[in-house]
Amino acid sequence: MINPNNPSLKSWVEVPEESDFPIQNLPFGVFKTDYLGAAAGVAIGAHVLDLTYLHENGFLDGLGLPAGIFNQACLTSFIGLGRATATKVRNRVSELLRNDNDELRDNIAARELALIPQEEVEMLMPIKVANYTDFYSSMEHATNVGKMFRDPENALLPNWKHIPVGYHGRASSIMPSGVNIKRPKGQIKTPEASEPTFGPTKRLDFELEMAFITCKENGLGNAISTEEAEDYIFGFVLFNDWSARDVQVWEYVPLGPFMAKNFASSVSPWIVTMDALEPFRVSGPKQEPAVLPYLEYSGDKNFDIELEVYLQPSSGENNLISKSNFKYMYWNVNQQLAHHAANGCNIQVADMYASGTISGPTEDSYGSMLELAWKGTKPLRLKYGAERKFIQDGDTVTLKGHAKKDNVRIGFGEVRATILPSD
Amino acid sequence: MINPNNPSLKSWVEVPEESDFPIQNLPFGVFKTDYLGAAAGVAIGAHVLDLTYLHENGFLDGLGLPAGIFNQACLTSFIGLGRATATKVRNRVSELLRNDNDELRDNIAARELALIPQEEVEMLMPIKVANYTDFYSSMEHATNVGKMFRDPENALLPNWKHIPVGYHGRASSIMPSGVNIKRPKGQIKTPEASEPTFGPTKRLDFELEMAFITCKENGLGNAISTEEAEDYIFGFVLFNDWSARDVQVWEYVPLGPFMAKNFASSVSPWIVTMDALEPFRVSGPKQEPAVLPYLEYSGDKNFDIELEVYLQPSSGENNLISKSNFKYMYWNVNQQLAHHAANGCNIQVADMYASGTISGPTEDSYGSMLELAWKGTKPLRLKYGAERKFIQDGDTVTLKGHAKKDNVRIGFGEVRATILPSD
Repeated sequence: MINPNNPSLKSWVEVPEESDFPIQNLPFGVFKTDYLGAAAGVAIGAHVLDLTYLHENGFLDGLGLPAGIFNQACLTSFIGLGRATATKVRNRVSELLRNDNDELRDNIAARELALIPQEEVEMLMPIKVANYTDFYSSMEHATNVGKMFRDPENALLPNWKHIPVGYHGRASSIMPSGVNIKRPKGQIKTPEASEPTFGPTKRLDFELEMAFITCKENGLGNAISTEEAEDYIFGFVLFNDWSARDVQVWEYVPLGPFMAKNFASSVSPWIVTMDALEPFRVSGPKQEPAVLPYLEYSGDKNFDIELEVYLQPSSGENNLISKSNFKYMYWNVNQQLAHHAANGCNIQVADMYASGTISGPTEDSYGSMLELAWKGTKPLRLKYGAERKFIQDGDTVTLKGHAKKDNVRIGFGEVRATILPSD
Repeated sequence: MINPNNPSLKSWVEVPEESDFPIQNLPFGVFKTDYLGAAAGVAIGAHVLDLTYLHENGFLDGLGLPAGIFNQACLTSFIGLGRATATKVRNRVSELLRNDNDELRDNIAARELALIPQEEVEMLMPIKVANYTDFYSSMEHATNVGKMFRDPENALLPNWKHIPVGYHGRASSIMPSGVNIKRPKGQIKTPEASEPTFGPTKRLDFELEMAFITCKENGLGNAISTEEAEDYIFGFVLFNDWSARDVQVWEYVPLGPFMAKNFASSVSPWIVTMDALEPFRVSGPKQEPAVLPYLEYSGDKNFDIELEVYLQPSSGENNLISKSNFKYMYWNVNQQLAHHAANGCNIQVADMYASGTISGPTEDSYGSMLELAWKGTKPLRLKYGAERKFIQDGDTVTLKGHAKKDNVRIGFGEVRATILPSD
């Protein structure tokens, strides 16, 4: 078999330059059209490849797929078949799309039915999120927050380098790109006020994150080693963990963030598989002090994925406001999952595990407005003289991500949402 | 129509004295037998009434129920029909079970098929929990924790009387009564140690809680008033929020409890409906200072439900170790739900919202070992000279709850689990 990540592969489907979706990517998603309803597809160039059509018309024969597995508004059943099955499907789709394969290429009728322009579809949530956890795994982010809110000299809390700190978040309010978000209300108590008030947040923020999605169950009471972790990880999406900072600072003691976060998160709709990300593995930061044995790992477990954040005011141009990279993560996904299951917590199919804000080492690589405008003390300058301390009504925030190597660029598309005014 | 809560109602089904399930209760659950599989039922006395049988044989005609609604291993679809439908079903079941109604009473063949002894069935999770939130709404509990871990003179944090404090927990590891729980491992750092270690928790605890289950969706971005809240609340179960205190104290800053809680929670299998609890409403504690307008409410929103905790060592007798009451809650469920949705967070069908530990004002009414043995400083005396600071391997913890008025007692059954040794 030809390695589907081989940089020299080309598809007979036209792939625009700088596309996130060359034949080396092939992410899975759920798309919707008026005439087909909602179903599973794979992105290729500017098109969606309709997996239901391929399956029903014999192009995926021999892969052991259950009937109707792609004709669903959710990838959960497919993902639950496990990584080996997904790999077989991706390999077969790669073969069908390769420019030296005539099965689909020269079947004009089938091509026309199987390939749908992305501009004609609506992308939905790829899964119904079963459980959602958010980690806090960027040392730069945790350090920045500690400097701002605690002790600049001892910014990192004592547990941070021992534990991949995380907390449970709200699964129901995770929305796909394109769903706009109403500015949330909440309890706010400014340092000057004697009592809290209730109203729209004045400190709405984004958080630049990535999230992995699980495809296997361990069963209650069973740990997962860092070695085994990747069997459980199907792939990744971009994740915007919207946050109301003024609500957060008042509510979060002692049980953590709650209403400051659970009004909405936004994700990119295409799940880029672990398989597609293989060529982009890099080593992570050195972990000092040494981690406990259950968190030890071997091999390259970080990924070199360039991340960008754009902010567009309602009546203005888009501004690139941050450039970061997933490779900065101190704790890797193997460690996150091993930690999560170390007490026997049962991982489910279609869980989502977000990284926490991914900040880089420089001021232009911070992953939140809180850090970019340093708690409002250094307003961020946008084009045409505009400034921002936090996100305003009408602002559109877009996260993008891609990996590049050997002239191959694979990407995540984007997650984009506009902030609507509060009621 | 006869009020199904009328204290004078009697059933033709024998209801043992002190049973939790007289005709005035009629809670919903999911039971399993070898010959029927898993399906929905109602508890009456020492029996389960098979709703699938009733539905398929015309006893529930005219209620507008979809085909197959009860023949499922989960009540989520039924609950999602809303409270009005559940009320109709409960009213009709009450009618069928009344001693002056001959429809089922005198149909010996149907009776034998529809009524199954509880000892012959296994009770399953009544719902697949969509999202799980745990509140922290007992002032006595929050005060006790504050005294032990923070400042005895200022035990309550400044936000506590303004916010029904809560946090998101793990939905996947909520188990029905009877599923035993393995002692979890975790990172522990004692005050004396310079570094954390990893191993089985030495401070395993229970938490006496109740939880409500939702049956209606508000949709992202829409608030729910305290007035509207009860349309969303289907009913209640007993909830044991297992906690590893040594893990919790090391991990919980700054994002809250995580691995200390997510290894397991245990719930009672019968959902006692809001309808059944109507006669047991009482007023709640006075809230001072006044709450913000979105948390104001009118009417009696607390419930007088007596709660008991039993601890049975592996080779010993059962010990009643705490007697508390749900009526002590400072924040009521209407306020909890209104707060949760005040930012537009979307409530889903089959969400579970736990109360937080329900401690009463006296030392024998505390809802956790942490409080009963005051952080290990006052070991709890059990029968035959045994003592406990925390829960030991082989211990069985059972929570029970019931409400009593006008010679009617309705109860929740129990939630029981035994702690198994760590691997």
